[in-house]
Amino acid sequence: MLGAIEAGGTKFVCAVSDDQLNIVERISIPTETPTETLAQVFAFFDRYPIKSMGVGSFGPIDINEASATYGYITSTPKIKWQDVDLLGQLKARYDVPMAWTTDVNAAAYGELILGAANGKSSCLYLTIGTGVGGGAIVNGEILHGFGHPEMGHIKVKRMESDEFEGICPFHGDCVEGLVAGPALEARVGMKGQQVPENHYVWRTQAYYIAQALMNYSLVLSPEVIVLGGGVMHQQQLFPLIRKELKRLMADYVALPEMEAFVVPTMLGNNSGIIGCLALAKEKNNK
Amino acid sequence: MLGAIEAGGTKFVCAVSDDQLNIVERISIPTETPTETLAQVFAFFDRYPIKSMGVGSFGPIDINEASATYGYITSTPKIKWQDVDLLGQLKARYDVPMAWTTDVNAAAYGELILGAANGKSSCLYLTIGTGVGGGAIVNGEILHGFGHPEMGHIKVKRMESDEFEGICPFHGDCVEGLVAGPALEARVGMKGQQVPENHYVWRTQAYYIAQALMNYSLVLSPEVIVLGGGVMHQQQLFPLIRKELKRLMADYVALPEMEAFVVPTMLGNNSGIIGCLALAKEKNNK
Repeated sequence: MLGAIEAGGTKFVCAVSDDQLNIVERISIPTETPTETLAQVFAFFDRYPIKSMGVGSFGPIDINEASATYGYITSTPKIKWQDVDLLGQLKARYDVPMAWTTDVNAAAYGELILGAANGKSSCLYLTIGTGVGGGAIVNGEILHGFGHPEMGHIKVKRMESDEFEGICPFHGDCVEGLVAGPALEARVGMKGQQVPENHYVWRTQAYYIAQALMNYSLVLSPEVIVLGGGVMHQQQLFPLIRKELKRLMADYVALPEMEAFVVPTMLGNNSGIIGCLALAKEKNNK
Repeated sequence: MLGAIEAGGTKFVCAVSDDQLNIVERISIPTETPTETLAQVFAFFDRYPIKSMGVGSFGPIDINEASATYGYITSTPKIKWQDVDLLGQLKARYDVPMAWTTDVNAAAYGELILGAANGKSSCLYLTIGTGVGGGAIVNGEILHGFGHPEMGHIKVKRMESDEFEGICPFHGDCVEGLVAGPALEARVGMKGQQVPENHYVWRTQAYYIAQALMNYSLVLSPEVIVLGGGVMHQQQLFPLIRKELKRLMADYVALPEMEAFVVPTMLGNNSGIIGCLALAKEKNNK
């Protein structure tokens, strides 16, 4: 059987599936201390004959196989998970091949294998929620370099007359500092879910999100951009973002048709865990 | 023997080499009309038993193998080269396997194989000259998606009090519109080569170039960034860019050490043609 863990900052989703990625059992465990959470993870997987595992983790994480801290969660603001050797502890318990990447890379891979990017060889998955994070597939493979992308933190052009300073503790008005859920809330003084559909702030959000997508598109040239996360539950954002992106690009590059280019996640909350299962399957086939 | 063409907007560089990429002969042909230029290209290659060829072209070009216009130069401002089937004309003359990509992708590949990114599996090559163009290597392969990157046209945050509008005909103040050679000239009223080393404009250039590199790094996570092109002949830019990039990133991501991360091209004007030869070699091995 294949095992998968989507290790998130608020919960760990664990699943086992057969070789066709049909999920046999799936549980959700609240993220407490590493010891507490891993005890529950072990209790779950101990009951199955796992032959390989895919792990997609919140980060930043170390994905450099040559590094002494490969497999660690590194400088996360979640103090109890700082410098935790997550992959190492899993490997000590289960001596099977394991894939290790970020939760958003796993989600991108899930959308590629079974979701909105099925049949493509490249895609971008972007989640806009409590933070902004992205994962990318290039030539059919997860993009890794000196580390993993942190594309929520790119800089964009400020909207004229927008004086909101941004709330990223590192970069102020990077994209995450401007459009993540907490930024939206700080900007208008209420939760995103409470903001009326015709409020000006959705145009502001679309302005910055479209610029981010423009930059990602010009760098990565993905065949499709899949948007997920709490903020993107606001369906009215999609047409606003597509329109603004088209305007910004000014027909310089022949983009795929907008409706097919900027799309909602097809797997919903399952893109990550399905991506992890797909990575486990691939690891097993190697 | 291996054949290579670096098809540029002002000149075509053609070369043949042995299997170890040792160049046997190399010529430079001014870019006139397609008919005139290709006649000279053919006269050169007709004398050699070429077994495969790598072509890196100015663009935009069509790199989608499923497309009816695969191998074409498409919407270039050089009217005589618009919608020209460059690859098709080469294939009609030489029935050998051919690799086809952009000039900057070829340069990135050249730097990876024999230059400043040797031994890495990822890199970014950025040229800042009459335009700004970039190519990227991800997991050892050239990044291609729905098309090729056009990363010179990303948007960045404007410097406070900088009122220069930018000169990109498509996007105004995208990176190319702000820092390419013609933009620099428009900003200060003289050619880059004439601008004193301590002129304020180098700080402005560094501010925007560093932001572009920040965005590329957060999206692509390249192990090394190789900078080439006329504007980057101004060596004083390197320390300014590195310092600004370090400040902007605010230690959020563990970057490689700056001196080793942002480097000048090692192959100089040869990165493109060497990349094309390396692509020809790879094509031949397949």
